[in-house]
Amino acid sequence: MKNKLSNENVLYPTPTVLVGATVNGKPNFITIAHIGIMTHNHISMSMGKTHYTNPGIKENKTYSVNIPSESLVTETDYVGLVTGNKVDKSKLFDLFYGELKTAPMIKKCPVNMECRLERIIDFPNHDVFVGEIIATYADDLVLTSGKVDISKIKPLLFDMPLKKYWSLGSAIADCWNIGKKLKSK
Amino acid sequence: MKNKLSNENVLYPTPTVLVGATVNGKPNFITIAHIGIMTHNHISMSMGKTHYTNPGIKENKTYSVNIPSESLVTETDYVGLVTGNKVDKSKLFDLFYGELKTAPMIKKCPVNMECRLERIIDFPNHDVFVGEIIATYADDLVLTSGKVDISKIKPLLFDMPLKKYWSLGSAIADCWNIGKKLKSK
Repeated sequence: MKNKLSNENVLYPTPTVLVGATVNGKPNFITIAHIGIMTHNHISMSMGKTHYTNPGIKENKTYSVNIPSESLVTETDYVGLVTGNKVDKSKLFDLFYGELKTAPMIKKCPVNMECRLERIIDFPNHDVFVGEIIATYADDLVLTSGKVDISKIKPLLFDMPLKKYWSLGSAIADCWNIGKKLKSK
Repeated sequence: MKNKLSNENVLYPTPTVLVGATVNGKPNFITIAHIGIMTHNHISMSMGKTHYTNPGIKENKTYSVNIPSESLVTETDYVGLVTGNKVDKSKLFDLFYGELKTAPMIKKCPVNMECRLERIIDFPNHDVFVGEIIATYADDLVLTSGKVDISKIKPLLFDMPLKKYWSLGSAIADCWNIGKKLKSK
């Protein structure tokens, strides 16, 4: 039996990320899970327009996307609870920089992408920043045969309806493969 | 030790969905996992420009987003393997319609969103369709106290680097809560 539920968004879970930017000359971080994938090297981050980070991204046209593991759940949630306008988040993490000099990345996050701002999709209350991925960094510990292994990253999966972080479960099947058995029908 | 990996996208996993549209007067479905969340009621679907479904969405300005459970993994993968240009996918599923008359929804998927096309974000090889969610439908079986419970949906989580579908694991913590313990520092 189907229930009609107004216009609730149920497109979850999404990976929770820490977005790094230079704001007022200092590294700052914001927790985002309203992300998107647009092409193989363009990704989006939706941020309410009142956030402290938005002007820094607009000024420098760069940011980083850092994927925290389950072990960073407390720090990740904390970053989303306090604004850079009141709390200096520049010393929370050990940082490194790549090709872009204004996209601070978090060493403790097992994978990091540095992005150049490609465009902004404008909504009344949200800036959706679209970034071109310039370079990706991954810890040895999350690679399997040179590929990024999501089961080793252990990302924090965000769910808005229940307001929870979830873990990744087990592999179910190979994509572009298991469906082949219906092709003969 | 960090490894630099060109510009690989590692923003995974994302929920795998079946997008429904009316194409050439008939229901058609496409499997998409390059999704996005832009506002609380705007979501995006990235589709390569050569897909059979794109002209149908542009013509009718409507589509549905259906979230399959793990039990539908074979059908979901199959829909992504064959094009509506060659295979009639209109009879694959039992369908229902909501407010929009050209957004076919799949009964067997536990949650469904009907969307009105709000804008298209143009890339050289991809149309990123942004939809406003008009109404959401959920099976009794996936509700907990009236809320959509992702652990009952059992979504198929997509991972591009390893080309796998993954299950959802267990709840780790409450969002906007576990980080409070760092506030006193």
